[in-house]
Amino acid sequence: MKKSAVITIGNEILLGKTLNSNLAFLAQELANLGLPVDYAVTVKDEAAAIHQALKHCWNKYDVVITTGGLGPTTDDITKQEIASFFGKKLTFNAEVWEQVQQIFATRNMPTPEINRSQAMVPEDFIALKNERGTAPGLFYEEGEKSFFAFAGVPMEMKHIFLTQAKPILEKKYGTQDKVIQKTIHTFGISESALAELLTDFQPPEKVSFAWLPQTGRVDLRFYGTDSQAIEQAFNECYPQIKQYVWGFDEDTPVSVLHHILREKKLYLSVAESCTGGLIQKMVTDLAGSSDVFLGGVVSYANELKIKVLKVKPETLKNFGAVSEECAGEMVQGVKELTGSDLAISTTGIAGPEGGTSEKPVGMVCFGFSVLNDIWSKTHIFNGDRELIRLQAAEFALLNLIRYLQGHKF
Amino acid sequence: MKKSAVITIGNEILLGKTLNSNLAFLAQELANLGLPVDYAVTVKDEAAAIHQALKHCWNKYDVVITTGGLGPTTDDITKQEIASFFGKKLTFNAEVWEQVQQIFATRNMPTPEINRSQAMVPEDFIALKNERGTAPGLFYEEGEKSFFAFAGVPMEMKHIFLTQAKPILEKKYGTQDKVIQKTIHTFGISESALAELLTDFQPPEKVSFAWLPQTGRVDLRFYGTDSQAIEQAFNECYPQIKQYVWGFDEDTPVSVLHHILREKKLYLSVAESCTGGLIQKMVTDLAGSSDVFLGGVVSYANELKIKVLKVKPETLKNFGAVSEECAGEMVQGVKELTGSDLAISTTGIAGPEGGTSEKPVGMVCFGFSVLNDIWSKTHIFNGDRELIRLQAAEFALLNLIRYLQGHKF
Repeated sequence: MKKSAVITIGNEILLGKTLNSNLAFLAQELANLGLPVDYAVTVKDEAAAIHQALKHCWNKYDVVITTGGLGPTTDDITKQEIASFFGKKLTFNAEVWEQVQQIFATRNMPTPEINRSQAMVPEDFIALKNERGTAPGLFYEEGEKSFFAFAGVPMEMKHIFLTQAKPILEKKYGTQDKVIQKTIHTFGISESALAELLTDFQPPEKVSFAWLPQTGRVDLRFYGTDSQAIEQAFNECYPQIKQYVWGFDEDTPVSVLHHILREKKLYLSVAESCTGGLIQKMVTDLAGSSDVFLGGVVSYANELKIKVLKVKPETLKNFGAVSEECAGEMVQGVKELTGSDLAISTTGIAGPEGGTSEKPVGMVCFGFSVLNDIWSKTHIFNGDRELIRLQAAEFALLNLIRYLQGHKF
Repeated sequence: MKKSAVITIGNEILLGKTLNSNLAFLAQELANLGLPVDYAVTVKDEAAAIHQALKHCWNKYDVVITTGGLGPTTDDITKQEIASFFGKKLTFNAEVWEQVQQIFATRNMPTPEINRSQAMVPEDFIALKNERGTAPGLFYEEGEKSFFAFAGVPMEMKHIFLTQAKPILEKKYGTQDKVIQKTIHTFGISESALAELLTDFQPPEKVSFAWLPQTGRVDLRFYGTDSQAIEQAFNECYPQIKQYVWGFDEDTPVSVLHHILREKKLYLSVAESCTGGLIQKMVTDLAGSSDVFLGGVVSYANELKIKVLKVKPETLKNFGAVSEECAGEMVQGVKELTGSDLAISTTGIAGPEGGTSEKPVGMVCFGFSVLNDIWSKTHIFNGDRELIRLQAAEFALLNLIRYLQGHKF
């Protein structure tokens, strides 16, 4: 099997200021192309360190990719080091210069002279057009080996990889050793309870099997290169846990919800207090959300719960804002305000302050309404503010999904 | 200056399934200890790869740390490789065995026999107690050099590092070479335009200087061990770019906005269309947001813009929902609805569908209102749906911040 290496160039990651999301992206893509990453190294923006990493990787791997250090400023020395390592001269590329000027033109700005360096390309290298920024990608091949260099800005790197590098790699290496994955998403059962259900399940030898506890839910993954064996493992496992399964593979709670609502021609609205807009942000992360989502309210202050969502002042007084009673009135209120078919509401204590012994940090009350049905629910989540909010948002979506999946309309 | 290297052992990171948050944590901690990470490498759970990484790093760096591969299952081979690399035998450590059994006892479970391997420690190594899991950390020193191995589970690794490894490093190396950082956050100017403003600026030799383009904004960072030189570089640089600076160091747009609003006792509300709740989610990410934020509306459907925010139907008819006119009425509407002192609104085309030649994907109209002032603005963002929305949200927050920073109330 062909193998890849990724060299990350930049002081930021070595200072701990940035997570290496470029590596995660490239590693997934390369695994899918049957060119899994075998080795990844992060070095400083220093000539000797870059040279040594190139030497080690180019010698040993079929595909070598660098990210970072291709910008126009003086600390960006990657391109020079690449040229020198491969023994190539940097030459001015008029086409790239044209593209760089175009980028600035669309921003209604003159092109600063410093960007001229972006148009310098090592001889025998192919410049890969960067439509999202000024530093072109670079591609070079020697026999069976391929080398790529990308800018470190994730949105630029990803775009160049997907539009240009990936087709080159597909064409050159084919995808016969492609790693195949099949994932089952469950909700409403713990990892160990799921493991007990599957005590007797033994995946075939050729199939790797992984338990992937997510926050508040568990995924199961089968992977390997033998698609038939994976299919067989899946078929043996799935019926035993079916009642907890809400999706497969690339499904997310939001994509599954969109699918159901679009199919049933139903519209959603949302009223959020402690999740502060997160659920609506997630629902609208997906394109086409206007087909299934009307909008909603973030009623952070109690006055807005009363004024906009028509929560009764007595409800707040008698039960508090964090109560199933309040969540129920919120969900009814947002449904009436928007005229939606279904609605979700949240009200809770995201912390770190504001908890009491009766209503601890992490306690969230939910309201749900689907057509004429309406119900409330309370759950206590662990973790910090971010995790509590994220789990609460997913809990709301997955409860609604499980309800919809259990119903014929 | 003493330098560190981090070896990450594990297949998940090379499959792109996990971000290397352990590296980010260790890199920050080690920089603060004056032992900055100079080199970081990720290798598979394979004997030869681990051996080679150890050889390279132990030869070259003062402090070497491995994470991962210390678990009890058969794919965890790190400890054996460490013992063999340093030429030490693995011996049974009764104290560690006691600790492992205790961990299972607190979980009300018998200790599976497989965990006996956890109590095997290389000769001359010190076992570092793991209070969060079953794999102890390992410490070994040879003269001025130090070696540590930690389990890969972030919560276990961090706890062992902070409670045990950090005190050892502080005692052994002192902290006189602590790496100091100073960051300037700018907005409203491109990296290369900023570079032109600073053409004559030469940081002192002892100060490292980095350009950090973020999505839609640029950070500048000075770092090194000489605080006076860093201060001097900062003082020389800052006045030249002052008009684009909105914050320093750990500041984020939301933290700066919270600070200003709390100080001025002003309350914010938000009306979102294309950002779909993201701005409100960001504003409420920070604890204490109820001191500065009342709530708002996600008016995704046009009917909600009219009904809830009192946008005039003629405005939608004459100018469309994506117009400065609509954004202006939205911001006025949400301010009246909530009774807030200031407000932001967004309406735009997040894509990938829905663009036209007049109103392309990425075009977003913003409304702003601060007390009696009200204004609108249009900006076109590049990128995919996620990036357009993220940049639009930051653009809205940073425009409001820059306005507030320029005003005395």
